[in-house]
Amino acid sequence: MSTAKLWIDEEVAATPRVKAIFDDIRTTRKSDFVNNFWRALANQPELLERTWSSIKSVMIEPGSLDPLTKELIYIAVSTVNSCSYCVHSHTAAARAKGLTDEQYGELLAVVALASQTNALANALQIPVDPEFTIG
Amino acid sequence: MSTAKLWIDEEVAATPRVKAIFDDIRTTRKSDFVNNFWRALANQPELLERTWSSIKSVMIEPGSLDPLTKELIYIAVSTVNSCSYCVHSHTAAARAKGLTDEQYGELLAVVALASQTNALANALQIPVDPEFTIG
Amino acid sequence: MSTAKLWIDEEVAATPRVKAIFDDIRTTRKSDFVNNFWRALANQPELLERTWSSIKSVMIEPGSLDPLTKELIYIAVSTVNSCSYCVHSHTAAARAKGLTDEQYGELLAVVALASQTNALANALQIPVDPEFTIG
Amino acid sequence: MSTAKLWIDEEVAATPRVKAIFDDIRTTRKSDFVNNFWRALANQPELLERTWSSIKSVMIEPGSLDPLTKELIYIAVSTVNSCSYCVHSHTAAARAKGLTDEQYGELLAVVALASQTNALANALQIPVDPEFTIG
Amino acid sequence: MSTAKLWIDEEVAATPRVKAIFDDIRTTRKSDFVNNFWRALANQPELLERTWSSIKSVMIEPGSLDPLTKELIYIAVSTVNSCSYCVHSHTAAARAKGLTDEQYGELLAVVALASQTNALANALQIPVDPEFTIG
Amino acid sequence: MSTAKLWIDEEVAATPRVKAIFDDIRTTRKSDFVNNFWRALANQPELLERTWSSIKSVMIEPGSLDPLTKELIYIAVSTVNSCSYCVHSHTAAARAKGLTDEQYGELLAVVALASQTNALANALQIPVDPEFTIG
Repeated sequence: MSTAKLWIDEEVAATPRVKAIFDDIRTTRKSDFVNNFWRALANQPELLERTWSSIKSVMIEPGSLDPLTKELIYIAVSTVNSCSYCVHSHTAAARAKGLTDEQYGELLAVVALASQTNALANALQIPVDPEFTIG
Repeated sequence: MSTAKLWIDEEVAATPRVKAIFDDIRTTRKSDFVNNFWRALANQPELLERTWSSIKSVMIEPGSLDPLTKELIYIAVSTVNSCSYCVHSHTAAARAKGLTDEQYGELLAVVALASQTNALANALQIPVDPEFTIG
Repeated sequence: MSTAKLWIDEEVAATPRVKAIFDDIRTTRKSDFVNNFWRALANQPELLERTWSSIKSVMIEPGSLDPLTKELIYIAVSTVNSCSYCVHSHTAAARAKGLTDEQYGELLAVVALASQTNALANALQIPVDPEFTIG
Repeated sequence: MSTAKLWIDEEVAATPRVKAIFDDIRTTRKSDFVNNFWRALANQPELLERTWSSIKSVMIEPGSLDPLTKELIYIAVSTVNSCSYCVHSHTAAARAKGLTDEQYGELLAVVALASQTNALANALQIPVDPEFTIG
Repeated sequence: MSTAKLWIDEEVAATPRVKAIFDDIRTTRKSDFVNNFWRALANQPELLERTWSSIKSVMIEPGSLDPLTKELIYIAVSTVNSCSYCVHSHTAAARAKGLTDEQYGELLAVVALASQTNALANALQIPVDPEFTIG
Repeated sequence: MSTAKLWIDEEVAATPRVKAIFDDIRTTRKSDFVNNFWRALANQPELLERTWSSIKSVMIEPGSLDPLTKELIYIAVSTVNSCSYCVHSHTAAARAKGLTDEQYGELLAVVALASQTNALANALQIPVDPEFTIG
């Protein structure tokens, strides 16, 4: 059920440019497991490099939002985009980062409520209050 | 540019069922300002009551996610749903709750990155790793 | 705020292929008013013909769903697709076909509820019950 | 292929708050079958209660739109949101409420046509005719 | 995992209106293989006819865009609409029309980049530069 | 109607990190005009740098897809994501790269047709033919 080949470790090992990224994924994440997303992107080494570089920079380097909050935002976006793969992988990632059942329930409640009010505002075509704009 | 009338305060005052909700919005938010979303929903008192009740319960009552985190999730959902009104109102709400420029930049970066990898996973139709599923 | 020219009546009159469609729109709808959607499509006569032909066949020819029900479905789709133009034009069309405030409130409630449960089902990635599938 | 546990009847029976909702679902629907949507939401009792309460109020209580029309709107929204689960469950619900093949064909035709004209209007960024706005 | 019956060849052969379309699909494509999309649409002969007629006119008749470019646009739209079926079928179609790995990588890169900047522009609600509008 | 300040040239000139990117945009595009997208991103220098770097690499560096084809894909994605800003800016960019009226009409026709069949396939939940999958 894929439109591209998923690379197995032997194929990765035989392609230095891809192997370098897989090695960095394993080292950075301190885990030998490399999920299918990267095995599919391996068909396009440049895209693989650019995507992994963005993930490291945005999701892994420390910043002002904590790692769990970033995963919650990622799940929210993936849900609305109907990305089954991304919902699965980032929900698992959030759990690995300590997501509690109570926090997960609140995430679901906010995503559901926002979807509901988005639909209402888009159906009613409500004009933006001047108080909410800048400049 | 709306598909429904926006109620002005005089009309609200003349309709007890709507006035009760507007009074509660003003009291709960400690502000006299009631934004257009509620003025458009006033045409449908039952929907107005149900929606305000959900907002109070999900966004205002204390829980395990802090109020700013909930606003970030709300902005993320509204962005992907292309809800111009909701993006404006919840970005303003997040700023009122202390969103810093650095946090906002990270929110934008996560939303942009998730949209990008969602597109890749949906284009490649990547099968979900068994490690990410439950049961 | 458009990416294509909107044809005025003088331009339409000078282009027989476009004029024939505009004449049919006016005759079919028993109204001299032709809205901007058709004035933008006039730049592409073949697309104009094909689109008007589909509208006539699907929305105007009598069938088993009544005209107002079709407009409600149209508004629902346009809302989720964030098509501001289509939400405006089909809400106006539904009102012209007799949409009451109570019906409109129920339409909004169903669209909002469906958006909410869609988000929940997509976030939870709930497997389809075998009872709901065919074959 | 789920991101949350689906509760079986033994687990439901052991949790009074969840059992009360499942009992009400069974009584209201006059059926012993409870579909996976509720079994997944059972992990979050408050969300379960709020969602079921909304479904009862919007979809089951009599109003000005008949139950089948509401299901058609629900299918339309779920289709555009790419919610596989919801499309399956509400198409089954519509059939149980008497949806004929001819009505289903017209629903598909309207959803397809609306998606098509939504794309055209969004690509052309057609300005809303003043005739379609209120106030 | 379908909401409608998929017609097998025996059923097609017994229904002249459907058989005529299937014959034309086979003749036009010079292949005996008819994919599930048409087998599902066979339940609604009028919709089947209209959809096949549009596919022939838009995708098969020669025009100013070459057939492979049209498939790339089709994949892009299907990806953003999260249409798993359409992504699979049109990626296969593009490969049959000569899509190279390098071209596919660039398609993925553009779709991912556009999704990313769409999210940024929608989150920031950037006003359209007057230089980009017409009329 | 923006949620962030748009930087004017004086502000850009006073911030070396932002000025360096604006200079590169002007040099690369051989034009003094810098559109609002970059003026909004200027609030977040790191995101500005990363986004411009991706645009240069994906859209400007020569590859196997020609520049106009990439713009057509970009418009298609932006249309489905309802990104008004991006539809405007990339339609203008496509025109600057030589898009003819006939090509534009075919682009619109493909985007509209794909949206239509996406809706049908998602409503019917058609199972993917094994012929379309890999591995």
